[in-house]
Amino acid sequence: MKNIMLIIEYDGTNYHGWQYQKNAITVQEVLEKAVEKVTGEKVNLIGSSRTDTGVHALYQVANFKTKTKIPPEKLPYALNAVLPDDVVVVKAKEVDKSFHARYSARSKRYRYLILNRQFPMPTMRNYCWHVPYPLDVEAMKKAAFFFRGTHDFSAFKASGNKKVNPVKTIFDLTVEKEGDLIKIEVEADGFLYNMVRIIVGTLVYVGLGKIKAGEIPAIIESKDRTKAGITAPPQGLYLVRIVY
Amino acid sequence: MKNIMLIIEYDGTNYHGWQYQKNAITVQEVLEKAVEKVTGEKVNLIGSSRTDTGVHALYQVANFKTKTKIPPEKLPYALNAVLPDDVVVVKAKEVDKSFHARYSARSKRYRYLILNRQFPMPTMRNYCWHVPYPLDVEAMKKAAFFFRGTHDFSAFKASGNKKVNPVKTIFDLTVEKEGDLIKIEVEADGFLYNMVRIIVGTLVYVGLGKIKAGEIPAIIESKDRTKAGITAPPQGLYLVRIVY
Repeated sequence: MKNIMLIIEYDGTNYHGWQYQKNAITVQEVLEKAVEKVTGEKVNLIGSSRTDTGVHALYQVANFKTKTKIPPEKLPYALNAVLPDDVVVVKAKEVDKSFHARYSARSKRYRYLILNRQFPMPTMRNYCWHVPYPLDVEAMKKAAFFFRGTHDFSAFKASGNKKVNPVKTIFDLTVEKEGDLIKIEVEADGFLYNMVRIIVGTLVYVGLGKIKAGEIPAIIESKDRTKAGITAPPQGLYLVRIVY
Repeated sequence: MKNIMLIIEYDGTNYHGWQYQKNAITVQEVLEKAVEKVTGEKVNLIGSSRTDTGVHALYQVANFKTKTKIPPEKLPYALNAVLPDDVVVVKAKEVDKSFHARYSARSKRYRYLILNRQFPMPTMRNYCWHVPYPLDVEAMKKAAFFFRGTHDFSAFKASGNKKVNPVKTIFDLTVEKEGDLIKIEVEADGFLYNMVRIIVGTLVYVGLGKIKAGEIPAIIESKDRTKAGITAPPQGLYLVRIVY
């Protein structure tokens, strides 16, 4: 058995997220079907990150075990030939048997795009969050600073699984403005459910003046979801890097 | 009667171009229907540029005559409320009665995006032309130089209407590389049918080494469509400016 790692890009618009679901189409499912068509084997594809409905990936990593004799470097061409055009395999390589796309990950990086202008932009409607009110980007940058480091991020977690360790380390969180677009990037050793989108929603509240930058430490300490901002919508979110 | 000018953005993916057609949905049609819903009047909306199926606009200009009492600055909100989310009116203002979106235009500017890397990019699949072979951008820049100025562009025109004057003046034609994206921008006093897409296809042939940059003047002089490159696909093309 070989362990094959794939690097995948996808447009999440037409998918109910990454993870397999009954009665709904997911990226994992279309990829597993593609692998089956190409290799003749039913495989379990492990993704590094379970992206939600509408969330995109410019760099998702997955792995699967296979007996196929197709050389790894030919797999992207074979898989892309049977995949829909909103999912593309950009690389495949054989990795050590111990490699696990999710458990082996040391850090993950996400990008979030906000369009900050009066009217929405048709060609970007599935690829950003349109915020029509002027945002104070300098205040958002100040607020971003307080998120860095190791904290209990319970205030930035959707309700759900209570067993997950809420302590995460954010290595980097940046806010940049390029024309009408505000680009937020965040890298951490892991993320709680909806954590990136709640951080973005909270930064937008800071940009709107609803929350002051200096209040962020107290919000983190409160571990109270109701103290943070709204959950930003999914279509502005992109998985952009996984470090192993 | 007031003469109202609109500035419009649209994602051309789901439209059979700008101009009204029987049995096919067009941008002109959805805008005329929106104006009718908002003002109660059937109007003839004149667009500056008849973009093709799949072509986008970041700045289309149109005008129509109306008796409506809705103030122009409120029209974008009223129209966007009834428009689909892939067509957005970003500005409306009253203009002189003599203003005609098409005939009054002094120059038009288009942008074309080429993705030049091994594999296509899912989130850009409707917004660029994927060329998987390495392109020589410096050669493309040299070739671009020869298009500037006043020429008979018959070699860069799809067959069709023979009555149109084939002499146009290109004020600007630039080729820039930003990461994997090659951005071509061209501004002229007018364009023949498919002219931008044939110029882009020809520049790509230069980038591939199929045509030499120095051959461009002879191709222009030949007035022979078969000497130029292929017609680039529509989804990489954006209307970006109209000068009056």
